[in-house]
Amino acid sequence: MENGTKPPVDVIVREVGLRDGIQNISVFMATPDKLEWLEAEADAGMPEMEVCSFVPARVIPQFTDAAEIVARALRIDGLTVSALIPNLKGAERGIAAGVHKLNFVMSVSASHNLANVRRSREDSLADFAAIAALIRTVEPERRPQLCAGLSTALGCTIEGRIPEKDVVHYAEKLAESGAGEIIVADTVGYADPTAVRRVFKAVQSAVAPLPVAAHFHDTRGLGLANALAALDTGVRRFDACLAGLGGCPFAPGASGNVVMEDLVFMFEGMGLRTGVDLDRLIAVRGILERALPGVALQGAIAKAKLPKGFAPQPATREALAAV
Amino acid sequence: MENGTKPPVDVIVREVGLRDGIQNISVFMATPDKLEWLEAEADAGMPEMEVCSFVPARVIPQFTDAAEIVARALRIDGLTVSALIPNLKGAERGIAAGVHKLNFVMSVSASHNLANVRRSREDSLADFAAIAALIRTVEPERRPQLCAGLSTALGCTIEGRIPEKDVVHYAEKLAESGAGEIIVADTVGYADPTAVRRVFKAVQSAVAPLPVAAHFHDTRGLGLANALAALDTGVRRFDACLAGLGGCPFAPGASGNVVMEDLVFMFEGMGLRTGVDLDRLIAVRGILERALPGVALQGAIAKAKLPKGFAPQPATREALAAV
Repeated sequence: MENGTKPPVDVIVREVGLRDGIQNISVFMATPDKLEWLEAEADAGMPEMEVCSFVPARVIPQFTDAAEIVARALRIDGLTVSALIPNLKGAERGIAAGVHKLNFVMSVSASHNLANVRRSREDSLADFAAIAALIRTVEPERRPQLCAGLSTALGCTIEGRIPEKDVVHYAEKLAESGAGEIIVADTVGYADPTAVRRVFKAVQSAVAPLPVAAHFHDTRGLGLANALAALDTGVRRFDACLAGLGGCPFAPGASGNVVMEDLVFMFEGMGLRTGVDLDRLIAVRGILERALPGVALQGAIAKAKLPKGFAPQPATREALAAV
Repeated sequence: MENGTKPPVDVIVREVGLRDGIQNISVFMATPDKLEWLEAEADAGMPEMEVCSFVPARVIPQFTDAAEIVARALRIDGLTVSALIPNLKGAERGIAAGVHKLNFVMSVSASHNLANVRRSREDSLADFAAIAALIRTVEPERRPQLCAGLSTALGCTIEGRIPEKDVVHYAEKLAESGAGEIIVADTVGYADPTAVRRVFKAVQSAVAPLPVAAHFHDTRGLGLANALAALDTGVRRFDACLAGLGGCPFAPGASGNVVMEDLVFMFEGMGLRTGVDLDRLIAVRGILERALPGVALQGAIAKAKLPKGFAPQPATREALAAV
């Protein structure tokens, strides 16, 4: 269901700021500001954006305008539009809105899943199976791709370490139930490169040939190192957020999602094409500065500017062999 | 000439804050504050510290107390004490002070070398040969190890891209002249992981079995990812600075050296022993906060706190195989 043509890319970066970046912000981001962000970042070449979460408005008021945001996003040529869904009701709304991808989410941590979506992990698996069945009833040309995200896969603030075998178990179950992609998420920034390599290798091996995507938070500074570690294992789909929005309100000064523009800088510097124009991407921060006063914008490349003579080269065999 | 015994480590981290971290700070850091930092960080298990630069006081007034700092550092049991030297005069002062290691520095970029040490690269090589000859005249039990740093090896703000063959050429020349270690430095934060892997592999191959150390700046956010890339090539010696001091005064808000405590967190999380007590290391930031008002302290782990259940494990075969 993706529209238009896109330039060839070596890695797919996906902007999740309109969902993960603002879901914990206490103020409502005005709909025109969201639309401006959406369109400016798509104009900069962003290939995919998660634009909202289909959750009840009483749970997260930030997404009361989800239908309007999705409608506008779907008019942007070439943009893959995704939305997060926690349950069957969210899936119904997402299907009605016509998004290209539905990102179901559950936590590998039993305690976190209970706290976040108020059900056991087995109940979440049952929900996912029901959603997959629902989606199969949608006419093919309107049928979204169903993806499955595993939160707290690299650690949990409640449970601490999460067994790798649990991550693999739930990835396998979701794949068997019809997931088109598995998203492994370090929700709270606990991962290190060794853990990333171990978990992503195990999950990829378990669900092959399904693509496995990475969703990292930079809470403890290792976001880009972890992205590099995941890249090394063959991951080619990365979530991130412009200006690293999404910090936890209970950890003042702590970073949130991996900073999109720094991630793009790393990949492009490595000779891996993202399809994103870095200068134009950095300029989009101006919208956030104006629309979200008081919210700290993270990120290094926007402050330090691009290296003198920086000229991203098309991916070379050498660069790809090195990763 | 190293004193005492040290616990076994898998990677050697080296604090360069008392040199690189404060050399561009406009205020003089009081000598008692420097001594407090030095002793507290050594107490936290830091195995090696570059404690000053032997440059003329008129060039960098920050190091007028170099002899006093070195004298105190040498009384700390088990600490390897190094100092930067730009020329023969600096070497004479370093030998007289009795440091364990002298870190000679030159730039691979001809323009930067001219701007920084006011001579051609060939003249710097001649200086290095003269220093090596001088050091051979020192009685063995007082003879420092002579190391050689290559600045701007991953890029230069004046020249932009730096040819890899130039880095290899100067590394070979310095090795032939008697360097005991080659330090490859991304002085201005231009590196990316692909460039790091390429350059460090080439230099290690050219100077083997000499150890090659990495000195990264986090100016563009890739410091830890670049450290991981260097680790992957076999590098086991890493410079960094507590709280990421060392930002360029001409790039407001930009980070400086790689943040030591975040680097230690990454390595320890990966199961690689550093010998450093992370909680005690983080506590040393309090000295900087008090002694350097107005100087921004960088770093994520100090703000976000360690993960729940974080328990660094001794290096496992698995962790080492993964790197």
